[in-house]
Amino acid sequence: MSSYVTHLESALDGTNLAAHTLQTTHRDRPLWVRYDLEAVGDALTKDRLRDRPPTMWRYRELLPPESDDAIVTLGEGMSPLLPCPRLGAQVNVGDLWIKDEAQLPTGSFKSRGLSAAITMAKELGVERVAIPTAGNAGGATAAYAARAGLAAYVFMPEDAPAVNKYEAALAGAHVFLVNGLITDCGRIVQDGKERMGWFEVSTLKEPYRIEGKKTMGLELAEQFDWDLPDVILYPTGGGTGLIGMWKAFNELVELGWVDPDDLPQMVAVQSTGCCPIVRAFEAGARFAEPFEDPATIASGIRVPSALGDFMILDALRESGGRAVAVDEARIRDWMQRAASTEGVSVGPEAAVCVGAAERGAAEGWIGPGDRVVIYNCGAAQKYPDVMARDLPRVDKDAPDWDRIAAGRAPTTER
Amino acid sequence: MSSYVTHLESALDGTNLAAHTLQTTHRDRPLWVRYDLEAVGDALTKDRLRDRPPTMWRYRELLPPESDDAIVTLGEGMSPLLPCPRLGAQVNVGDLWIKDEAQLPTGSFKSRGLSAAITMAKELGVERVAIPTAGNAGGATAAYAARAGLAAYVFMPEDAPAVNKYEAALAGAHVFLVNGLITDCGRIVQDGKERMGWFEVSTLKEPYRIEGKKTMGLELAEQFDWDLPDVILYPTGGGTGLIGMWKAFNELVELGWVDPDDLPQMVAVQSTGCCPIVRAFEAGARFAEPFEDPATIASGIRVPSALGDFMILDALRESGGRAVAVDEARIRDWMQRAASTEGVSVGPEAAVCVGAAERGAAEGWIGPGDRVVIYNCGAAQKYPDVMARDLPRVDKDAPDWDRIAAGRAPTTER
Repeated sequence: MSSYVTHLESALDGTNLAAHTLQTTHRDRPLWVRYDLEAVGDALTKDRLRDRPPTMWRYRELLPPESDDAIVTLGEGMSPLLPCPRLGAQVNVGDLWIKDEAQLPTGSFKSRGLSAAITMAKELGVERVAIPTAGNAGGATAAYAARAGLAAYVFMPEDAPAVNKYEAALAGAHVFLVNGLITDCGRIVQDGKERMGWFEVSTLKEPYRIEGKKTMGLELAEQFDWDLPDVILYPTGGGTGLIGMWKAFNELVELGWVDPDDLPQMVAVQSTGCCPIVRAFEAGARFAEPFEDPATIASGIRVPSALGDFMILDALRESGGRAVAVDEARIRDWMQRAASTEGVSVGPEAAVCVGAAERGAAEGWIGPGDRVVIYNCGAAQKYPDVMARDLPRVDKDAPDWDRIAAGRAPTTER
Repeated sequence: MSSYVTHLESALDGTNLAAHTLQTTHRDRPLWVRYDLEAVGDALTKDRLRDRPPTMWRYRELLPPESDDAIVTLGEGMSPLLPCPRLGAQVNVGDLWIKDEAQLPTGSFKSRGLSAAITMAKELGVERVAIPTAGNAGGATAAYAARAGLAAYVFMPEDAPAVNKYEAALAGAHVFLVNGLITDCGRIVQDGKERMGWFEVSTLKEPYRIEGKKTMGLELAEQFDWDLPDVILYPTGGGTGLIGMWKAFNELVELGWVDPDDLPQMVAVQSTGCCPIVRAFEAGARFAEPFEDPATIASGIRVPSALGDFMILDALRESGGRAVAVDEARIRDWMQRAASTEGVSVGPEAAVCVGAAERGAAEGWIGPGDRVVIYNCGAAQKYPDVMARDLPRVDKDAPDWDRIAAGRAPTTER
């Protein structure tokens, strides 16, 4: 099949731009991808979905490539949606769920956005992509570029997590470590675009990562049989997923598949160590000031300045949601709590949502009967430094049975 | 629904044992789970599968729990089956696929076996499970035990991979590090069973991990529309998956869903650093001698002595397959090759299968038209030490553009 995309649209001022040609931003701000939703509604029915493979590409009519042959896929999507009653009881939320995006290619939700972005880059003739990143986006870019046969250039701060550096290099990307911050990496990509022939695939610098992330919302709707939950708690860095899900829900309303009066509250969750969106939300602003000296162990949400800040803030307000910052010092504790009560390996980013759930129940913006969903955006396993702790030792020839019998798993962090 | 299990059966001598009660081994060797396949055939049709969720529990009639409520799940199963033409071209295999088990809970195929084993342990009244492990089984045991509300005791060699130690502790297991080998850990579990009330869930010490792993074969058949491939390359440590898949294929033959003349060659792949099954296969033996001083960076296949050796060897011979050992020194190179040609983050265990594919094509036991499947049993991301390498640096204020332009991704290992 071909695409139902009609045009691209500036998120800032509504200017229309041509689709089916390489686009980046408009006035340095992101673009929406717009579809002929009436035609999509004729072509796609809920029933037709049932026979399709469990990947995000099952929502093909709501995704941008012209040709099916262009699709660059590693099987991403239809991540499990897991009921979490034990964790819910601990945080006083009666109907808590985790959507486990750790079970995607490269172990994070970045795979959705990069599958879409690399698909479109390839379809539109790009040969080399570049990205500044301090986390999981580097591994995903490298993997999808390899899958597509494109060259990838990945610039990372030298203190980025080891797993993220190595996974990108393993997948054949040209990885360079920079003695600075992600903003320094971004400047190098900016400077190199022309001379190196790079197309930049970083967050919201091209139109299609939103479309990939949108499928998190489409899947959620389908998995809950088109009855959306009351509250979505979303760990917010660049915010592409939150923006994408809100777009998805509105497209589903236009298709008549979900009830417009029944959309969830979107809640952006950040750490007290880096919470520019929370500050802007509380100040009633539409744009966020850069957050000075951001510091959080959740590298994926250490984003001091988001290109789509106004898109995030608009979605929060339109949905009757909010932005909350929770205590940086408790992130490891929340990871432990989710994993030890439910067996879900929640990464440090999503861990802040456990704190937000507890806060919401205490403050009353999560009601007793509310259905609440947390997005686990990446596998805890990718963060050995964050998980690290001292573990008790046992001698092979003389095991101390009292110690083994007494031994609770150590929950004290190092 | 309830279960179609009729009884358990000693794999060694065919002795029947009662199902629906806690069983371990018979004469220290593993048990098969047997079903009333005629009744299964009446209850389950290919068509009925189409409406079921994409987890391994879609094959419910071929799985052991009495009650649906007992199922302990994190959404494991229906891992993507990815065509890999570029990698295939490099190793001269025309129709190569990877089944990507890294996209399962805790990032490895261990989740299948432990989902089944913990389900049955819980259903049969177990409160505490224990396991000696040097790898991914520890994390999976901890996660499923947490999900089930059981206590888990995990004993690991102190030099086990860091991610595996920490993921188990994060999920609340009682993790103990032992100054010895996995065999020393095994002895401690053995000694502690009675005094600690532990039920041991290590490889083939209970009957149900095979049943979980069996679903790798069921999925493969369904994903290829019940037309099985010609060759399966399986990284072989304890061999549960190979044993389980061969069992699955034979059950599908009995159900009449696959052609008995069309079963794949099963190939056990090991590293030259630890290849007891290969030695036994070549010697024409049914049981393998313990491999002295095993040494491989692929920790999951560093298994010097497998409890199910004869079950593995029987499956290889019945299928017309073989056992091959490939060069330990080339594991990192094969990982790099798979990831950089196809974007699949192949762990060190599965990497040996890339070598085996190349060997098979060269030696002619993989024919030009053969369809070949590699199982990627765990995510490369869980092995930062194996992936580690030196990466080029770029100065944030004075990027060296010649170096960036020249810079191939470094493939030299550290």
